Amino acid sequence: MSTFFKDIPQIKFEGANSTNEFAFKHYNPDEIVLGKRMEDHLRFGIAYWHSFAYEGGDPFGGRTFERPWFDGGMENAKLKADVAFEMFDILNAPFFCFHDLDVRPEGATYAENQRNLEEIVDYFAGKMETSNTKLLWGTANLFTHRRFMSGAATNPDPDVFAYSAATIKSCMDATIKLGGENYVLWGGREGYETLLNTNLSREADQAARMLEMVVNYKHKMGWDGQILIEPKPQEPSKHQYDFDVATVYGFLKRYGLENEVKMNLEQGHAILAGHSFEHELALAGSLDMLGSIDMNRNDYQSGWDTDQFPNNVPETALAYYEVIKSGGLTKGGTNFDARLRRQSLDSGDLILSHVGAMDICARGFKAAAKMFEDGTLEQARAERYADWDLPANQEMLQDGTLEGIQRHVLTQNINPVPRSGRQERLENLVSTYV
Amino acid sequence: MSTFFKDIPQIKFEGANSTNEFAFKHYNPDEIVLGKRMEDHLRFGIAYWHSFAYEGGDPFGGRTFERPWFDGGMENAKLKADVAFEMFDILNAPFFCFHDLDVRPEGATYAENQRNLEEIVDYFAGKMETSNTKLLWGTANLFTHRRFMSGAATNPDPDVFAYSAATIKSCMDATIKLGGENYVLWGGREGYETLLNTNLSREADQAARMLEMVVNYKHKMGWDGQILIEPKPQEPSKHQYDFDVATVYGFLKRYGLENEVKMNLEQGHAILAGHSFEHELALAGSLDMLGSIDMNRNDYQSGWDTDQFPNNVPETALAYYEVIKSGGLTKGGTNFDARLRRQSLDSGDLILSHVGAMDICARGFKAAAKMFEDGTLEQARAERYADWDLPANQEMLQDGTLEGIQRHVLTQNINPVPRSGRQERLENLVSTYV
Amino acid sequence: MSTFFKDIPQIKFEGANSTNEFAFKHYNPDEIVLGKRMEDHLRFGIAYWHSFAYEGGDPFGGRTFERPWFDGGMENAKLKADVAFEMFDILNAPFFCFHDLDVRPEGATYAENQRNLEEIVDYFAGKMETSNTKLLWGTANLFTHRRFMSGAATNPDPDVFAYSAATIKSCMDATIKLGGENYVLWGGREGYETLLNTNLSREADQAARMLEMVVNYKHKMGWDGQILIEPKPQEPSKHQYDFDVATVYGFLKRYGLENEVKMNLEQGHAILAGHSFEHELALAGSLDMLGSIDMNRNDYQSGWDTDQFPNNVPETALAYYEVIKSGGLTKGGTNFDARLRRQSLDSGDLILSHVGAMDICARGFKAAAKMFEDGTLEQARAERYADWDLPANQEMLQDGTLEGIQRHVLTQNINPVPRSGRQERLENLVSTYV
Amino acid sequence: MSTFFKDIPQIKFEGANSTNEFAFKHYNPDEIVLGKRMEDHLRFGIAYWHSFAYEGGDPFGGRTFERPWFDGGMENAKLKADVAFEMFDILNAPFFCFHDLDVRPEGATYAENQRNLEEIVDYFAGKMETSNTKLLWGTANLFTHRRFMSGAATNPDPDVFAYSAATIKSCMDATIKLGGENYVLWGGREGYETLLNTNLSREADQAARMLEMVVNYKHKMGWDGQILIEPKPQEPSKHQYDFDVATVYGFLKRYGLENEVKMNLEQGHAILAGHSFEHELALAGSLDMLGSIDMNRNDYQSGWDTDQFPNNVPETALAYYEVIKSGGLTKGGTNFDARLRRQSLDSGDLILSHVGAMDICARGFKAAAKMFEDGTLEQARAERYADWDLPANQEMLQDGTLEGIQRHVLTQNINPVPRSGRQERLENLVSTYV
Repeated sequence: MSTFFKDIPQIKFEGANSTNEFAFKHYNPDEIVLGKRMEDHLRFGIAYWHSFAYEGGDPFGGRTFERPWFDGGMENAKLKADVAFEMFDILNAPFFCFHDLDVRPEGATYAENQRNLEEIVDYFAGKMETSNTKLLWGTANLFTHRRFMSGAATNPDPDVFAYSAATIKSCMDATIKLGGENYVLWGGREGYETLLNTNLSREADQAARMLEMVVNYKHKMGWDGQILIEPKPQEPSKHQYDFDVATVYGFLKRYGLENEVKMNLEQGHAILAGHSFEHELALAGSLDMLGSIDMNRNDYQSGWDTDQFPNNVPETALAYYEVIKSGGLTKGGTNFDARLRRQSLDSGDLILSHVGAMDICARGFKAAAKMFEDGTLEQARAERYADWDLPANQEMLQDGTLEGIQRHVLTQNINPVPRSGRQERLENLVSTYV
Repeated sequence: MSTFFKDIPQIKFEGANSTNEFAFKHYNPDEIVLGKRMEDHLRFGIAYWHSFAYEGGDPFGGRTFERPWFDGGMENAKLKADVAFEMFDILNAPFFCFHDLDVRPEGATYAENQRNLEEIVDYFAGKMETSNTKLLWGTANLFTHRRFMSGAATNPDPDVFAYSAATIKSCMDATIKLGGENYVLWGGREGYETLLNTNLSREADQAARMLEMVVNYKHKMGWDGQILIEPKPQEPSKHQYDFDVATVYGFLKRYGLENEVKMNLEQGHAILAGHSFEHELALAGSLDMLGSIDMNRNDYQSGWDTDQFPNNVPETALAYYEVIKSGGLTKGGTNFDARLRRQSLDSGDLILSHVGAMDICARGFKAAAKMFEDGTLEQARAERYADWDLPANQEMLQDGTLEGIQRHVLTQNINPVPRSGRQERLENLVSTYV
Repeated sequence: MSTFFKDIPQIKFEGANSTNEFAFKHYNPDEIVLGKRMEDHLRFGIAYWHSFAYEGGDPFGGRTFERPWFDGGMENAKLKADVAFEMFDILNAPFFCFHDLDVRPEGATYAENQRNLEEIVDYFAGKMETSNTKLLWGTANLFTHRRFMSGAATNPDPDVFAYSAATIKSCMDATIKLGGENYVLWGGREGYETLLNTNLSREADQAARMLEMVVNYKHKMGWDGQILIEPKPQEPSKHQYDFDVATVYGFLKRYGLENEVKMNLEQGHAILAGHSFEHELALAGSLDMLGSIDMNRNDYQSGWDTDQFPNNVPETALAYYEVIKSGGLTKGGTNFDARLRRQSLDSGDLILSHVGAMDICARGFKAAAKMFEDGTLEQARAERYADWDLPANQEMLQDGTLEGIQRHVLTQNINPVPRSGRQERLENLVSTYV
Repeated sequence: MSTFFKDIPQIKFEGANSTNEFAFKHYNPDEIVLGKRMEDHLRFGIAYWHSFAYEGGDPFGGRTFERPWFDGGMENAKLKADVAFEMFDILNAPFFCFHDLDVRPEGATYAENQRNLEEIVDYFAGKMETSNTKLLWGTANLFTHRRFMSGAATNPDPDVFAYSAATIKSCMDATIKLGGENYVLWGGREGYETLLNTNLSREADQAARMLEMVVNYKHKMGWDGQILIEPKPQEPSKHQYDFDVATVYGFLKRYGLENEVKMNLEQGHAILAGHSFEHELALAGSLDMLGSIDMNRNDYQSGWDTDQFPNNVPETALAYYEVIKSGGLTKGGTNFDARLRRQSLDSGDLILSHVGAMDICARGFKAAAKMFEDGTLEQARAERYADWDLPANQEMLQDGTLEGIQRHVLTQNINPVPRSGRQERLENLVSTYV
């Protein structure tokens, strides 16, 4: 055992009255909710990057964290892995997620990167034999290195496209080998800094082709995991092509990929796109596109991605309600794409931030489950649209014409009477659960 | 002649050195640019609603304007029309645009509304016989009256859907009768205030059916105008379904309507959606979806739709550059969806706001045309992607697989070398035109 | 009794397990918290304007509510008052707040306005003899009428300044007569639409003089209520002078009024200014400037003032925590500057929106009180700064010079070691209370 | 001469018709405007940090620039200085600005930092003997190193306060030695990440004391430069104390420092605070607080500090108009706190970005000067307030009481008549200059 987490105990469920900072008060993995263990609903994932690769930097300041595995080669990558799996154990985390760059040293060439990744994947595989923690998803970091500065799939330079494709293949291979259930694509550089040097048509076609190759490779490998796109509107780019759920849906439809790809949705990205998280979840649900979630939060006053741990039960409840309505997280999970504030230097901060977040999620999820079971909200919603279920109205909807409906309005002197939307009463109802 | 614009002369082009406030300094309708009269490129349209129906109110204050045609029935509607056509003449405006509610009194029933609309359409038709001003587009106001508070096509009440369909038919009939070249749909209430009482799937289907009926009616009538959706992300609703170009495109694709409908794009709506105007224009252009534009501006610090007249040449130039690249405004036009500030009480303000805006647009358009003719910017853009035109790279793009490309990267030791994006140099280039 | 609220019972506290929509579940006025009745802590106020004068309009739509008292003269103003006091009774509200324009018909002249106000004030006074509801604050509406379109105190026209002063006097007289405990100034038109026609120096001086006259009149009348400014950054104006707490503080200091005036703070205005509500409260508290609060919420995705009822306990808890820390609401109160959504048409919506909000506030307040009593958070905060309490550090702070401190750093080789800020652990701590 | 800028010529003024990318087209240093050389008005400054220390990183990606002076000790610091002064020469820049960290290697202790700074200051001094470029301002970087993560002056750890004070002294000494005309304080870490661990009162007092010591040291040294605070609302901190002009003014007033300190204003910071740049400039001007400017621009759709070179003449014209109105840049200057986009890799990009920016500023300044000389705008503004200059109105303003004014309104039946604010006409007027 490394010394990084020394004196930090394994986190156990102790119930709501516990005053032990190092205990779950609401997250009881074995509690049965909606007929299933809570762990199997929530499927928590730990993000390797924020937890072990983030150094505490921001645009105006450098590293604040001092981790013994920083700055190293393969040896430190393995030390990092040791600590990571210790943390997974401490939290009893069912899943983790990673980019290639989080786990391996950067080499001078693609070949070296590939070898490094394979070596660390073998190292992970060894650890996973005795760990309870599985791989939720893998992904390729196609945004940090300067070669990707003008895009990965969408780069004006075909060599970068090629390099990206090869890197994605490595990462899909690693994901499959480690038993991952999803493969995620986040296009941090798939967008533009200025329209003046950008050809939108070419770049859209390039992005689509890359995605098509990913789907083809999945099928060729006989892998039944989910391919997920993660929408984000901007940052680092001024504009990113995968702006939000609606935009990604349109892109997939345009290129005929809507049945092959789902989405990984993040609260912070929703906020930056001008949406509530529940909007993005509900929209994805209505399009059968909800694959997995990143349950962090964004500061409402900051105009950039703050990736904070969730701490607001009413908000997480609304998010999980949409998840439950859309059928739950099947292959997906609840990843914390959240990083410590850069002043939170201690190893205890790393553990406790996750403990708090898991408790908040558990509270939100249980509230959402109760609300779903009770059915009062759904009943109110259904009643609001009930007139549409009348045969005459269904017929109008399916076969109507402007001319025919006009005649109907004139002959029946249709003069609609507004009915209360009852928003505040529904909000009161939700408040009784959270 | 009414007395409203008395002492205001017809606006003539006097050239850049004129100090006459009541003259065009840059907009010369007959100047040939890119082989065509400027008037025929820009196709300016005057918005009936802002110019004649807006009363100067805002959420914290009531009417500030005192117009003799306010508060009236049919007689005042005709007085309003008289003044409107006087203003069209003063500005020598080639086009105008209207909603039904702008031009007719509101009746107690649909039948009365229809009669009122028909009467005023006849009155317009009479005036248009001697006027140079044509109809750019008509549209239905399906957002002001309380019956639409929960949506028009997307209302939970089928009666509102029916009322809306009938109203749209009336407005399409009016548009066709008056020789309009476009019919616009802006869904100000097609969205939601709270997800809690909203069924996204139902409402999307309803919106799609209404649009389908509009398209069917167009074809039935043998009308060759354009059907246009106007995207806007929010306001009045918390969330509006036609959020932005990408969202509308996805919606049209989903329901198979992408070849029947184009878009009317507005700067202020782009801003509210988190985009630059040129982004929305370029995206629509790349999707062959650019139908017409609303050339107003939004205050960058205000979080709502400010609908101001444009006053920034560098910005209008970039907008028109995208318009020119996408083939120009064919049936569409440059509508000013702009209203006077509520402190601008005088009839002179109404004229001069348009004079200034038309001059700004002319300057922007001429700069854009010159930039387009010179071709330097497009050449730089093309060179950036030139490597993609090599046969090997085209082949990779069209037929590549992750496995094949990985082999290529390994065997060729592909290690991409970043090249400058030259953003500032391109910005300097643009500055030489504006 | 009017028929408006017929069938709606008086709202009683029934406890958290009640399923009665028309009952308080958390707000028990008589519950003792921090040694005082909850009613005496929270001091709820009902806003006359939103509850009885708001018609359901927004920038794109007109009136949706149908209230029997709309559109009338003095008779309807009295009917409105009847209904208002019925609602105060139903909710057992300890306070209400009003603008002159909310309660009286608008007259043709100032004299008529004054007479109307006096008549209605007498009518209120009669009702208040038997009502439990007192006046939290009065204020003048100096923003709705077109005469104020360019400002009230800051108007370029001295006549508007005069009219505003006279109106404020009427409203202060009414407030004093009705036993109000505060007088509020919100400068909805004290700002500008464009800098181009604005003289900032003149307008600041005008605003300061008006405020000085208000303070002088208060003293002349021997009234011991609080004078409160309500900051808001924008809307309706593009820029409003009372932008936020820091701005108002600077203004008061500039004109020597900082000991005479405090502030009324609103969550929605804080959000529009780019701050959290707790920031504004904490800052005002640290400046001894916290006078009263408007406990509504603003939609986080809307760029305008949405004035919604609060529904998020973690947020209200943080707000009340700052209130408690700063000494509580002494003469101030918790006003709901919140309006029904325009689709919430029913009288029941009006009652239940307040019931829900009062419960949310009670939950937040009780959580905040517990957190304050326990003291753990304050202890952690104090420990973070503990080194500053050492005598040598106090001396450095009070008497240090750059030269002296430089010598100290050099001779002692001061090399500070960062310590964790523990943000997530503190957030976890807060979560145990909410 | 280093090889970094090889083949790049010195930039000369060639006039508006030049097609030479490496020439000024509008910035002619010797052109007389408002009776003074343009160079002496604009006083351009090059930012050492963005030009020579920025590596091309962003929150999602690392260094993209390859500069031979990166990663080094004193030798590379001197190479960096060589290149910097070459660039100053190429641009014929009258000024530059720097932080200590930009110019010296970071040492292990304060003493080593101080020695490094002194060595490089001597090196600069040598170069400046033969250079035309002078020091506009110096400043201390109290935000990048992890020791400052929780604040510099406002740190809970007194040792950091001490370290900061010593560092400021070093930087003031360096500034004075190099003949700098201003000393700037930007408090990138003077704010908070969470209110939960923050004591606003203590931190305000600490900040004020540090500033007092700076002022005292200035006087002790007999230096007649300007002390400037640079407002910014957020980023890197969630909230920064020097939010905007109004906030900084209030802070200075609170601690009696308003006559000792002025402000350095930046467009991007204004935008992030919810203001236009001209607002911040006009407000500072009206408070006699305008010291210097950072003339960059912020992307309007990005919620973070984008620090781009200016490229919009209408906007720069409005900014310079406020500068001219407030008496011009006396000791201050026009600093470009602007960095290359991270894809702009080439040395030519570094030069041309500045060339373009200087031309844009020159165009904006000349337009502003013409507008100021013509006086039409100021005349319109003065006329709007003219009634206030009548003796009766002056008397009301200076000696009025609410009671007296009420009598006046009643007896004279004052009923103000709104007058047009003429915003669009004024905007048209401005457009004739830009």
